[in-house]
Amino acid sequence: MTITSIYQPIEQSLAMVEENLRTFTRANLPWMTEPLKHVLEGGGKRIRPALTLLAGKFYRHNPEQLVTIATAFELFHTATLVHDDAVDDSAMRRGRPTVNSRWGDGIAVLLGDYLFSNSAYLVYTVGNLRVIKLFSETLIIISSGQLRQLFSAYDWRQTQQDYYEQISSKTASLFAAATQAGALLSEAPEEAVQALYTYGRDLGMAFQIVDDILDFVGDEEEMGKPVGSDLLEGTITLPAILLMENYPQDNPIKELFQKGRDRNEMQRVIEMVRNSSIVEECYRIAADFSARSCRALDGLPDNAYRRSLLDLAHYLIERRR
Amino acid sequence: MTITSIYQPIEQSLAMVEENLRTFTRANLPWMTEPLKHVLEGGGKRIRPALTLLAGKFYRHNPEQLVTIATAFELFHTATLVHDDAVDDSAMRRGRPTVNSRWGDGIAVLLGDYLFSNSAYLVYTVGNLRVIKLFSETLIIISSGQLRQLFSAYDWRQTQQDYYEQISSKTASLFAAATQAGALLSEAPEEAVQALYTYGRDLGMAFQIVDDILDFVGDEEEMGKPVGSDLLEGTITLPAILLMENYPQDNPIKELFQKGRDRNEMQRVIEMVRNSSIVEECYRIAADFSARSCRALDGLPDNAYRRSLLDLAHYLIERRR
Repeated sequence: MTITSIYQPIEQSLAMVEENLRTFTRANLPWMTEPLKHVLEGGGKRIRPALTLLAGKFYRHNPEQLVTIATAFELFHTATLVHDDAVDDSAMRRGRPTVNSRWGDGIAVLLGDYLFSNSAYLVYTVGNLRVIKLFSETLIIISSGQLRQLFSAYDWRQTQQDYYEQISSKTASLFAAATQAGALLSEAPEEAVQALYTYGRDLGMAFQIVDDILDFVGDEEEMGKPVGSDLLEGTITLPAILLMENYPQDNPIKELFQKGRDRNEMQRVIEMVRNSSIVEECYRIAADFSARSCRALDGLPDNAYRRSLLDLAHYLIERRR
Repeated sequence: MTITSIYQPIEQSLAMVEENLRTFTRANLPWMTEPLKHVLEGGGKRIRPALTLLAGKFYRHNPEQLVTIATAFELFHTATLVHDDAVDDSAMRRGRPTVNSRWGDGIAVLLGDYLFSNSAYLVYTVGNLRVIKLFSETLIIISSGQLRQLFSAYDWRQTQQDYYEQISSKTASLFAAATQAGALLSEAPEEAVQALYTYGRDLGMAFQIVDDILDFVGDEEEMGKPVGSDLLEGTITLPAILLMENYPQDNPIKELFQKGRDRNEMQRVIEMVRNSSIVEECYRIAADFSARSCRALDGLPDNAYRRSLLDLAHYLIERRR
């Protein structure tokens, strides 16, 4: 199973999204073309536009509107990545330098704003007030979640509950908005809107947990960024929380942060996670969310789009990058 | 003439905007309250909400909708200030530390995003697609203008034309959006929408030129930030451009930038501007824009709102901060 085979039923629409992104990049003034190309043609998996397109195909829909909103979601998602990398001072993403490391923080801030506003403009052109609402609400949820994460960086007193809230706002909210927008645009019955929303939300949870596992066990080459990036930035994810639960007396994360993120100490924490059952346990939790996302689709028509959504749920928890 | 007397016809609506901003600040989770209070209760002049309110009172209007959109404009404007200060690495604004200098760049980026998204949400609640369009377009114009400014920082080969384009996107676009939104919400006839748009745009030009003059001749105490901030950040404004036009052979700005922004060299440039007719010339240009903004209102009903808009145009070019 490859991402290409999963995307097969929406192949043409997705190609139009790519075309939209290319046109957008080229339409801009010369000084913007290079950074826009850098972030929009950097080999993302296009999961969010694919979610809108797949979720939008079950009922009567206007294909052009779906493509427009799918494009808007990719611009929106890219904007959040560009801002996050600036906020976290990250140097690499997908094997390439981040905007902030290549052009500076100022360009990253303004390029993110530019991407946000263009995504908002695309949403406006479709003229659906519920989708407009969804976009503004989602950015409220994401930015306030990220603010909360930043204010609690290096605070080792975080629980599984805190973590789930965090990834719900950071990742699941946008996945859920992408599927929900597709459903809304296709005038799906309210139960189907709810089902696709739930699918997107639980898939987003599973996706982020796998992301956070890979930050401990992934291959730097394949991921395109260094292992342990989250801990280095003070972000405590599920593997770290389970590690702390396993060592309530001699908390290794607390020690790491108190020792000022020493390289050796970091390596020790990564090894502790790798040599335990924590990774397995995290994968089990991710698989639970993934299975729950699939169950949400039970009542939907059995067609190629539903099969792709189910396949995507399996694919995303088995990925290596 | 004080700003309070000018705002008198919209006193109550403006108090509701203040109340909205206070409620918004308090409604947020504890870690956000302090930075939100810092930026929203920092003694701004509330020009943009006042413009929406005044422009929206000429025809049949829903007062609550006007207050909502006026609040949205203040959130939007504050978001741009928070991001700009982070981009420019500014330490002070209105006599207080900026968000980036007090809480760091990361908080500034995310707080700006949070303000943008809440402003977009408020605009959604009013449900007027033309106003929604206006908001997203204005952020596109502002962020692309700021990107352009950043890419051309320390480039002394800038003309008056470049400068007018720059301040048109940076400042005049938001003034014009604020008046236009008021007009649109009051179902003003299309000529009145156009007139109020033109008023806002030309007023924004005048306002920014005065801002840029004050950066050379203002009182640091009154302005709440150091003199010469723009040049220090590589931003070339009208006084600097006129200075270069006066010294085509021995370009003092080119020299300043080549000498790595030496303190003494900077002081010399500021003195050159102060001891010339440049300041007078800049004020003349600002007064021209201000007069043009007033003329745009010729066809509007002669009432207290129109008188306030005219007074505001005079007040803003005579201000000291």
